[in-house]
Amino acid sequence: MEDLVILKNKYEKIKSENKKFDMSRGKPAPAQLDTVESLLGMVTKGEECILPSGVDCRNYGGIDGLPQIKSLFAEILGMETDEIIISGNSSLNIMFDTVARAMLFGTVEGEKPWMNSGKISFLCPVPGYDRHFAICEAFGINMINVPYKADGPDMDLIEKAVAEDESIKGIWCVPKYSNPTGITYSDEVVRRFAALKPKATDFRVFWDNAYVVHDLYDGGEKLLSVFDEAKKQGNEDLFYIFASTSKISYAGSGISAFASSKKNIDYALTKIKYQTIGPDKINQLRHAKLYPDINAVMEQMERHAEIIRPKFDAVLSAFEKELSGIEGLWWSKPKGGYFISLNLPHGKAKKVVALSKEAGLVLTPAGASFPYGIDPEDTNIRIAPTYPTLPELEQALELLCTVVKMVCSEGYED
Amino acid sequence: MEDLVILKNKYEKIKSENKKFDMSRGKPAPAQLDTVESLLGMVTKGEECILPSGVDCRNYGGIDGLPQIKSLFAEILGMETDEIIISGNSSLNIMFDTVARAMLFGTVEGEKPWMNSGKISFLCPVPGYDRHFAICEAFGINMINVPYKADGPDMDLIEKAVAEDESIKGIWCVPKYSNPTGITYSDEVVRRFAALKPKATDFRVFWDNAYVVHDLYDGGEKLLSVFDEAKKQGNEDLFYIFASTSKISYAGSGISAFASSKKNIDYALTKIKYQTIGPDKINQLRHAKLYPDINAVMEQMERHAEIIRPKFDAVLSAFEKELSGIEGLWWSKPKGGYFISLNLPHGKAKKVVALSKEAGLVLTPAGASFPYGIDPEDTNIRIAPTYPTLPELEQALELLCTVVKMVCSEGYED
Repeated sequence: MEDLVILKNKYEKIKSENKKFDMSRGKPAPAQLDTVESLLGMVTKGEECILPSGVDCRNYGGIDGLPQIKSLFAEILGMETDEIIISGNSSLNIMFDTVARAMLFGTVEGEKPWMNSGKISFLCPVPGYDRHFAICEAFGINMINVPYKADGPDMDLIEKAVAEDESIKGIWCVPKYSNPTGITYSDEVVRRFAALKPKATDFRVFWDNAYVVHDLYDGGEKLLSVFDEAKKQGNEDLFYIFASTSKISYAGSGISAFASSKKNIDYALTKIKYQTIGPDKINQLRHAKLYPDINAVMEQMERHAEIIRPKFDAVLSAFEKELSGIEGLWWSKPKGGYFISLNLPHGKAKKVVALSKEAGLVLTPAGASFPYGIDPEDTNIRIAPTYPTLPELEQALELLCTVVKMVCSEGYED
Repeated sequence: MEDLVILKNKYEKIKSENKKFDMSRGKPAPAQLDTVESLLGMVTKGEECILPSGVDCRNYGGIDGLPQIKSLFAEILGMETDEIIISGNSSLNIMFDTVARAMLFGTVEGEKPWMNSGKISFLCPVPGYDRHFAICEAFGINMINVPYKADGPDMDLIEKAVAEDESIKGIWCVPKYSNPTGITYSDEVVRRFAALKPKATDFRVFWDNAYVVHDLYDGGEKLLSVFDEAKKQGNEDLFYIFASTSKISYAGSGISAFASSKKNIDYALTKIKYQTIGPDKINQLRHAKLYPDINAVMEQMERHAEIIRPKFDAVLSAFEKELSGIEGLWWSKPKGGYFISLNLPHGKAKKVVALSKEAGLVLTPAGASFPYGIDPEDTNIRIAPTYPTLPELEQALELLCTVVKMVCSEGYED
């Protein structure tokens, strides 16, 4: 590694160039969005909105979504169409509403509203998705960190906690290409989730399958169906499953899916019917026409991968070249998803994020991937390489690696 | 009026023809939806999604909506852009969420969640919109009927109730072409709303301006701005105002607006930010391009009126011709909106709806326009003439008038 003085000089030089880079969020790049252009013109005539069934997509109704798009998500998730509700442009919105419904009305008929149930806790595998944790914060739900192992969250801890503590009502999971660890849960982890025996009868697993088809390399990683496994044990009511096209079609104008047992879906509809007359069916129709089956989706995902893959490769090779050998530092090597997780020696993450920002590179705030924004060891940085162009990314990586090396140098002082 | 025997025979004859008519909901007719066709093709190229400001409508973000469409609704509602949030396809969804937020978090910082406030009541001007009342039912909110006068709900009663009863946290209003009475609140009624002095500090008026531009006849009725009036008294925090394009563009694929004081809007955004990263901006852009200003909206509304007006005229002239002179029977003569309110002699509404249904005409269920579905005097039927074609409507009216005359005949027995 270069001498600290050389690193400091390099940092100051880059800083003086006043460039701006944003790697803070898992946003698709404009080039990715360009590959979806045909979605926009997929429905341009009124008559196309009238389905053979007689349904007029322009008018009210159809609270659970168009059959065509339910079929598509059934194929993607390996579930039945009557286990799925298709909604608007945001799976986060469905997740928030699902927690809100449990708070207000309880998880099913006969269960107490969580709001009247005293202390409520969620298990939070960390590092995880900041917006999941933010929902808990909004509702004043107590969050309990659960560390990751190589193949998923620590199941010993989870099994014990849910079996013993009735206040634990939920757990947030991103089971495939997890945000930000990139981990896909192993078959054993999935089976142990499917077999959970929680003390709270209204415990639910919030299974955010955000990256279900988001492979970067041929074949991708296989995630066992937690729902099939749970069904074998009669445990399917425990699972709330979420997915969306936010990173398939458009981040702002996609569609989202909520999947669960027929019992949970039917109960959800008894409340959703007060909330809306139905979702935007024309946008669902656009998607159904552009993606008639999962093969069309996988072709779309390959177009995304062609753009994203070189960016992941650039990060991994820069880290390999620049950061190898720094003691206590390691990073994830994901096969899909949107993030690389960089783990620094203890107490270094905030400093790296702050110095990067001073020199023009906005990273996800250190700690954001932890409940309450607190990374207890101040080690984790979420790297989101998709949004910048490849040349921008390479410059940003030069800056990032310089900062990391500088901060990790012997003799470096704040 | 014809002899009862003749009416009965006529009814049986129509019934035997096995026709089907639907006048149950305020749905736009396909012919109306056809007039909006150009919306579909308004944005077909990726580059059109990138605004001069740099905002890419295809990507995440913009939680309060596109500036262009905020400006449009500001013009429609006579409010400021920072008093408005633009959301997805359903103002009902915003209304539900607004009640849910008050239940969960309270109306503003420092107020108790309604869910922890003991008994909660809403005033409900009747007859009114069934989906408003259904939201209260969903949340277990106690509903108190308030009768309509000729120029709006009974303000003496409302002023007294909100001043005395701290459990009253809200009131549902459709101030223009009210569903189903067709009444537009008079200036005096609006001013009295603006000057309300509720005992509950977290009382709110849910001002559903669903028919704000929905005139059927030249000029239309003028609704005074309750928000301007309230501002004069420093009372603007009392008002939650809702509007949408559901009956301007597409019922299923429009956009919706939530407007209120800056204080209320800012507070709502502190919660909405947990719920979504942003609305479907491409659909907002389609609307902004098709309707660059209120004039474009008014031209659209004239196209709707050309289709709807003859249907309202058909109902009114059938009622005039067939039902005049029946004692205790009267109907509204609205200048806009989607409904005509038919008021029968006491105890006759359910019977008329049931017999109509038996003969193939589906009307809004009797009682639906009242809290808990109970019309205390069983008099009101909501007539929704927009969906059928004119020839269908004329046949449906023949059936309806026959049933009404039959049921109101001296000597008629169930």
